[in-house]
Amino acid sequence: MTASTGAAGAGFLEMWRDLRPIGRNRDSGGYRRYAWTAADADCRAWFRAQAESRGLTYELDRNGNQWAWLGDPDAGDAVVTGSHLDSVPDGGAFDGPLGVVSSFAALDELRHRGAEFTKPLAITNFGDEEGARFGLACVGSRLTSGVLTPEQAHALTDADGVSLPQAMERAGYDPETIGPDHDRLARIGAFIELHVEQGRALDLSGDAVGIASSIWPHGRWRFDFRGEANHAGTTRLVDRRDPMLSYAETVLAARREARLAGAVATFGKIAVEPNGVNAIPSLVRGWLDSRAADQQALDDTVTAIEKAARAYADEHGIEVSLTRESFTPVVEFDHALRDELARILGTDQELKVPVLGTGAGHDAGILASSIPTAMLFVRNPTGVSHSPAESAAEDDCLAGVHALADVLEGLACT
Amino acid sequence: MTASTGAAGAGFLEMWRDLRPIGRNRDSGGYRRYAWTAADADCRAWFRAQAESRGLTYELDRNGNQWAWLGDPDAGDAVVTGSHLDSVPDGGAFDGPLGVVSSFAALDELRHRGAEFTKPLAITNFGDEEGARFGLACVGSRLTSGVLTPEQAHALTDADGVSLPQAMERAGYDPETIGPDHDRLARIGAFIELHVEQGRALDLSGDAVGIASSIWPHGRWRFDFRGEANHAGTTRLVDRRDPMLSYAETVLAARREARLAGAVATFGKIAVEPNGVNAIPSLVRGWLDSRAADQQALDDTVTAIEKAARAYADEHGIEVSLTRESFTPVVEFDHALRDELARILGTDQELKVPVLGTGAGHDAGILASSIPTAMLFVRNPTGVSHSPAESAAEDDCLAGVHALADVLEGLACT
Repeated sequence: MTASTGAAGAGFLEMWRDLRPIGRNRDSGGYRRYAWTAADADCRAWFRAQAESRGLTYELDRNGNQWAWLGDPDAGDAVVTGSHLDSVPDGGAFDGPLGVVSSFAALDELRHRGAEFTKPLAITNFGDEEGARFGLACVGSRLTSGVLTPEQAHALTDADGVSLPQAMERAGYDPETIGPDHDRLARIGAFIELHVEQGRALDLSGDAVGIASSIWPHGRWRFDFRGEANHAGTTRLVDRRDPMLSYAETVLAARREARLAGAVATFGKIAVEPNGVNAIPSLVRGWLDSRAADQQALDDTVTAIEKAARAYADEHGIEVSLTRESFTPVVEFDHALRDELARILGTDQELKVPVLGTGAGHDAGILASSIPTAMLFVRNPTGVSHSPAESAAEDDCLAGVHALADVLEGLACT
Repeated sequence: MTASTGAAGAGFLEMWRDLRPIGRNRDSGGYRRYAWTAADADCRAWFRAQAESRGLTYELDRNGNQWAWLGDPDAGDAVVTGSHLDSVPDGGAFDGPLGVVSSFAALDELRHRGAEFTKPLAITNFGDEEGARFGLACVGSRLTSGVLTPEQAHALTDADGVSLPQAMERAGYDPETIGPDHDRLARIGAFIELHVEQGRALDLSGDAVGIASSIWPHGRWRFDFRGEANHAGTTRLVDRRDPMLSYAETVLAARREARLAGAVATFGKIAVEPNGVNAIPSLVRGWLDSRAADQQALDDTVTAIEKAARAYADEHGIEVSLTRESFTPVVEFDHALRDELARILGTDQELKVPVLGTGAGHDAGILASSIPTAMLFVRNPTGVSHSPAESAAEDDCLAGVHALADVLEGLACT
């Protein structure tokens, strides 16, 4: 984005420019903003500076989530908006940051309009939403809502064996205070998360902004294929127990079964031992991410993939074990709040923005079990996400800012 | 191995015990003795101590290979034996070390026999035979024989981006001296490498020791499958360009084509970007190791695998590129030397040891282009190699020591 359009636009673009270089990898052009790293610290410093420059009361909660308050948090029925600033490995610029930047820009827009707030307003940056480092998504919002216990969080480790508490301590945070924060959530009347769409529904419908209906149930399963390490040059094919073949069969089965069930299934992460060019692997570990519109379709898909994996493995002397590493059931966003957003953004007679489901998980999905939450999506012209190629047009981003401002005004200024 | 049998046996077992803990990973039980690491330095210190304890003249050549001389190296027509001490990732205890330990034990045996040497004898440890760190096998012998140029060697880097010269410097060696060493090779009349068999031919024939006939042509090819990184939860299957699917198809094609051609083909190493659970990969890089009894069969196999890879990739919007990272043509060991070994170990009328081809590369194969070389194999009961499960019976190892002693006596004491 290069040009500026209006007061909110200028602020938006300035924030976007400041945030752009943080944690950006020069080779890939993608972002590596992982929880409790130096890049994460830079993002957090940026958030705090934005809050303070607007005279908002900055607060860090017990789980490392950042809050910027306008008005008295204790007054209750607060309207909260925000997203996250961390990224997947080599992620794009928009997933997360667009929601945080748009929140500050929407506040600027409301002040420009001279809006008078009747409820407290807060902007948030939830920590470790992507789970890129410790393998579990939405750690900040899971801890706050009690979906993740402190004991479970303390057991998380990154690829280098660094535990979550160690990582927090090294970043200057106290890992002993983490845990559920029901009092905090009890003071919130609504949480709105604006997010770049991670799909092409808005592009196909021709709309700049949409409202979320639900988040598909989704989970991560680790497949361990164990065979026998051996010399790649001297071991006869008939003597081999090569787990890479089982893995390959399973990758293809996953695509086939997902297509049949109308679901999605992806093997995007793999770890091989010993991972030598001239060694038949002893272990191939592949992670399956699968999601579907409903629970039954997801169960059917994963069961069919597992069946295919076992059939091939049994035939070739490979042991296969399956571990469900995470699972999130379907999330229906609060219907009353969703209808309120539709009313604010459209008219009673004519709905101006489409309502759509999504396969991606979000903090708003986690918080939906505790408080009324809703999401706004901004059009993504290619649907590409979790990639340096992720994009959104400037006009669409500013349309998102205005829609969010309208929603916040409708909820917090009446 | 626990028991001792005779003088050579006691020395063999003691050496084996000393070497056993170096670079051994406690979890896997496998060895991680990579070039120019601390484990490699420990192996080298062990070699030097063995040389000096036997009154041999220790020498480090310009390419980091170790030599232990009995007699005057400059006298010419030297008989040299040895192997390597480095390992593949989580390799076994025998591949390499068996040859070095057996060399010292064979010298002990010959001294016990009172053998008088008429030619200089040397025992060697060739550096970086497995290529586990820098991706190219037999770096020490390739440099010495001029098959690898210093410029090519200087361009090698490990997975952390450390170059070979940097690694050598950090280990206290001078990388500027590396290069061909024709004078050294010109003083050698024969090189004999004893090695654990990496297959089951001796087990099937019921022999403890065999002689190598040839090394199959073999090579390493890197397949780069490039697609488009995207969100694993939100990207419709029809919108995906997922290179993992192309990789999986190619892995299965490799097995199919190798079987049809009577060759071997293995995908044992993979690198994925961004390698995130919820990201469709942008790049899947797979390394193919393929070998066959003759050049035509190998060419046919790799061509067929490439064709299958391209057919699938083209159909699914994946770019595939193929890079031959290394290639070694068929190596026929010196026929006169091979016949001499057969004569020494058998009788004119009755060949006591089998002669067999092998799919594995060795320093002896590299040196075969410069000097007469031969190999002895020791039975491997399961054929397993490049794995912690690699094994050889104590009796067979000692049979190998005696066979090597006989060969050295026949070549250097007459």
